[in-house]
Amino acid sequence: MYRITRRVEFGDTDMAGIMHFSNFFRFMEVAETDFLRSRGLSVSWQESGQRVGFPRVAAQCDFLKPARFGDLLEVTVTVEKIGVKSVTYRFDFSRAGEPIAVGRISAVCCRTGVDRQLESVEIPPEIRVKLEEGR
Amino acid sequence: MYRITRRVEFGDTDMAGIMHFSNFFRFMEVAETDFLRSRGLSVSWQESGQRVGFPRVAAQCDFLKPARFGDLLEVTVTVEKIGVKSVTYRFDFSRAGEPIAVGRISAVCCRTGVDRQLESVEIPPEIRVKLEEGR
Amino acid sequence: MYRITRRVEFGDTDMAGIMHFSNFFRFMEVAETDFLRSRGLSVSWQESGQRVGFPRVAAQCDFLKPARFGDLLEVTVTVEKIGVKSVTYRFDFSRAGEPIAVGRISAVCCRTGVDRQLESVEIPPEIRVKLEEGR
Amino acid sequence: MYRITRRVEFGDTDMAGIMHFSNFFRFMEVAETDFLRSRGLSVSWQESGQRVGFPRVAAQCDFLKPARFGDLLEVTVTVEKIGVKSVTYRFDFSRAGEPIAVGRISAVCCRTGVDRQLESVEIPPEIRVKLEEGR
Repeated sequence: MYRITRRVEFGDTDMAGIMHFSNFFRFMEVAETDFLRSRGLSVSWQESGQRVGFPRVAAQCDFLKPARFGDLLEVTVTVEKIGVKSVTYRFDFSRAGEPIAVGRISAVCCRTGVDRQLESVEIPPEIRVKLEEGR
Repeated sequence: MYRITRRVEFGDTDMAGIMHFSNFFRFMEVAETDFLRSRGLSVSWQESGQRVGFPRVAAQCDFLKPARFGDLLEVTVTVEKIGVKSVTYRFDFSRAGEPIAVGRISAVCCRTGVDRQLESVEIPPEIRVKLEEGR
Repeated sequence: MYRITRRVEFGDTDMAGIMHFSNFFRFMEVAETDFLRSRGLSVSWQESGQRVGFPRVAAQCDFLKPARFGDLLEVTVTVEKIGVKSVTYRFDFSRAGEPIAVGRISAVCCRTGVDRQLESVEIPPEIRVKLEEGR
Repeated sequence: MYRITRRVEFGDTDMAGIMHFSNFFRFMEVAETDFLRSRGLSVSWQESGQRVGFPRVAAQCDFLKPARFGDLLEVTVTVEKIGVKSVTYRFDFSRAGEPIAVGRISAVCCRTGVDRQLESVEIPPEIRVKLEEGR
């Protein structure tokens, strides 16, 4: 489990006076990115002269309570599932212990082949080991 | 069924060279908003001196193909489910007929009570009728 | 002079109930991009195997009136100044004829050299001719 | 002088591989907001039953160097000018001591009167004193 905190900024809000729902996905990505960095990984890297990375194939979020300007949100990252080629993260949002939202992102390990086309590949063993530590 | 088209803007992209995944949720909202406007509805309105609206309780998206700068995306809105208090929209993204993504947003009819707290209420019959037309 | 119209979306607003000021810059970019496309130009292109483009070096905006959700804004693009290496656009925002904001973006013609470093170059004559049409 | 640090997030970048220029304005706002909070002030507050705040009337930025994903940017806030009704902040962006950008935001003290119309007013003396500390 990995945890970040991030404050809801004025620009994150909308005219309903709460954080715009799309920004929960922005926060998830920050948590995912920081988690990967903490494991010595990255969202994409070069390997044998090819670009390898984890583009998203699915994202979802259940919104339990609104988040407001100035709120300090905690987002914990859990690696919920690792398949042969894909990984699913779970994100738990809370504010002072109170659950705010629960989200998930699924990403597939891909190599950028010719013509910028993405081709899914097996997660390399050394990456898998580091992701497993997040379970 | 209701349809909008929207071009992927430069500011919608990220360093991977494709539309940032959070913007699919922004596009869904635009489609939802325009759909509601086309039915004479709105995302929130005043009723008997109280604010009534449809805050989101869940959102999800499956990403099938990347969308790129300048792409003209079609987004169709379908009312997939109407419950007593909630409604679920389905959004189909395509580019020149090719499926790009499929998303869903669920919203609950709420009244803003005292202390800015949201209280879920039954969807008023005249609203329900108009939403049903979107099935 | 070139003109676009764009509606203020729900996600463009902030908790003050008006369009967030950073989105005026997003709208300017859309107007600039569309203007370039209308001239057969692009924000960046390949030339003799090198990437050439117009990164911004300055942007500014004076906000005269707030813009609100659903407002249909007109944005006119004028090429205000063309130097040897740079171009300055002026953007006039209005709503039903009423001035809302006035912005400017200055961009410098650059070639991406070795190590991803940008190097400013003279605007190619054939580009200059097309930009001049926007005065 | 007041200083914040903020990392460039993946979602802050665009397809040019650098931070999208509109996000410099988002970062300025975060610095401004945090500065105000550090002075015991806020972007808007209630006073004698009326809403008072500092909507922006102008914003500008000179971009010296591109900022990239993962960069840790320092943003210092200086109160450059305080008029009778308005205040101008200057923001200096740097990365490990290297200047990246310089921006400015001007805001006018306003009261929200009837019909949601904004009316400019003199900056209250107790607010002025706190802003002066930022020079």
